Amino acid sequence: MKFSTGILLPASVLLTSTSVIASDPNKAISIGILVFPGFQPLDIIGPLDIMMGLSSRFQNMTLSLIWKTTGPVTALAPPSANLPAAIYPRLAPSLVATHTFADTPKLDILLVPGGSGNRFLDESNDTSIEDFVAQRYPELQYLLSVCTGAASLAKSGVLEGKRATTNKASWKWATQFGNGKVDWVPNARWIEDGNIWTSSGVSAGIDMTYAFFKMLLGEDKAATVMNRIEYSPHLDKAWDPYAVVHKVPGADLSRSLGDCVGPVGYEFDCSGRK
Amino acid sequence: MKFSTGILLPASVLLTSTSVIASDPNKAISIGILVFPGFQPLDIIGPLDIMMGLSSRFQNMTLSLIWKTTGPVTALAPPSANLPAAIYPRLAPSLVATHTFADTPKLDILLVPGGSGNRFLDESNDTSIEDFVAQRYPELQYLLSVCTGAASLAKSGVLEGKRATTNKASWKWATQFGNGKVDWVPNARWIEDGNIWTSSGVSAGIDMTYAFFKMLLGEDKAATVMNRIEYSPHLDKAWDPYAVVHKVPGADLSRSLGDCVGPVGYEFDCSGRK
Repeated sequence: MKFSTGILLPASVLLTSTSVIASDPNKAISIGILVFPGFQPLDIIGPLDIMMGLSSRFQNMTLSLIWKTTGPVTALAPPSANLPAAIYPRLAPSLVATHTFADTPKLDILLVPGGSGNRFLDESNDTSIEDFVAQRYPELQYLLSVCTGAASLAKSGVLEGKRATTNKASWKWATQFGNGKVDWVPNARWIEDGNIWTSSGVSAGIDMTYAFFKMLLGEDKAATVMNRIEYSPHLDKAWDPYAVVHKVPGADLSRSLGDCVGPVGYEFDCSGRK
Repeated sequence: MKFSTGILLPASVLLTSTSVIASDPNKAISIGILVFPGFQPLDIIGPLDIMMGLSSRFQNMTLSLIWKTTGPVTALAPPSANLPAAIYPRLAPSLVATHTFADTPKLDILLVPGGSGNRFLDESNDTSIEDFVAQRYPELQYLLSVCTGAASLAKSGVLEGKRATTNKASWKWATQFGNGKVDWVPNARWIEDGNIWTSSGVSAGIDMTYAFFKMLLGEDKAATVMNRIEYSPHLDKAWDPYAVVHKVPGADLSRSLGDCVGPVGYEFDCSGRK
């Protein structure tokens, strides 16, 4: 199933409507996060820890963790023909899905994580994630992906004609999707295009999520949460040194791989630091 | 229950025996991670994502997620007299505990996370976590804590006479434990003292876990995993700018709050970066 881009609202309408969801802190924002066997835990928990902090202090939110069935979903991926076999059993926690595709309430924000399990889904011709994304995209205010979650977005059709980025270590696999109509940006830590935000691998989802909630709820609220989780985000969305590390075609080799980071809302510099 | 420090092995014996657990990649290292209602998800999943990457490629490991009962454990904390009430319902995923205190196998490494739920345990005089820590410490090669997990270590008695650190936003609460016999270090991102490693808040657990596995398995293996999760760790264990942010007594106000970070194993600098 592909989402018809023909019914996309123009950006101006989207921007008007998106501001509505954060204008009243008492009105719950409905957040959905997909899970699937072989999800990457940090793709979910990084962004979700930020949402947890915001939700208790600043903004009413509800959470749906979504898969085919409710209950535990393992982070252990089934074997994939596209990945080398694990030498040893991979440690893998299980997260509890709270909603099925069918009973998930109307969503304002949907986040799609990555993980090696989406190789298995692809090889099994299991289209349930991209079908859900395509089905729900018209009701969303924002659609976010972390890591190879962008592959699911590309397969759903919603990225056609858009700029996007994805995990740099899995660049070749993930960017094969989208029918050649996605402008994959190799040097981006994350990309905002209209109401779709896509991040690079794993930890990049934390950086993107900070920037997203800074936009949505303001820097003061977002900074409070980031400083409580003691995370100094990368602020330059256009620069991902892991494009160089993982030899992505088009990687910018001209600059230092170092980033100067510090607590949000404070002045700092890294002059002379190595 | 307090652990008697009288039966601690001398450091030289510990160092000899610890090297044993990583000398054969085929021999499984038994890892335990505690969970409890109101755990901070990123305290667990940050370190665990590193362990996941290492486990599939470089080192056989087994994982026990430990609580009183097996099955789902919510990250939603019961209310605490020591914390302001949440204004809105806090989003909270559930992780699945795989073992009980009673049926957890022999452990080589135990990690104790923090989270606001440990305020409730303390107010309820629930000593189950510190009892487990004290009971199992003699069998451990290493004991690690993230965030306010250090409070549980202090209450168990194993930190007496040792240097340690903890979450900077909850500094006053966490450092009240340990009978005045713990040397709490305000400016540390993490502390290694003997076979006990304690980190500052939440994300600091990722930095500590990288350093820990660099020590245990070598920089090449640890770097491979960090670069796949696109995390540029803070390498200076003696510097935590969040001591300044959260006005911890003794915080070092003399240096910039900025840190120069980049992909592990690559040369970089941040000269002139802000």
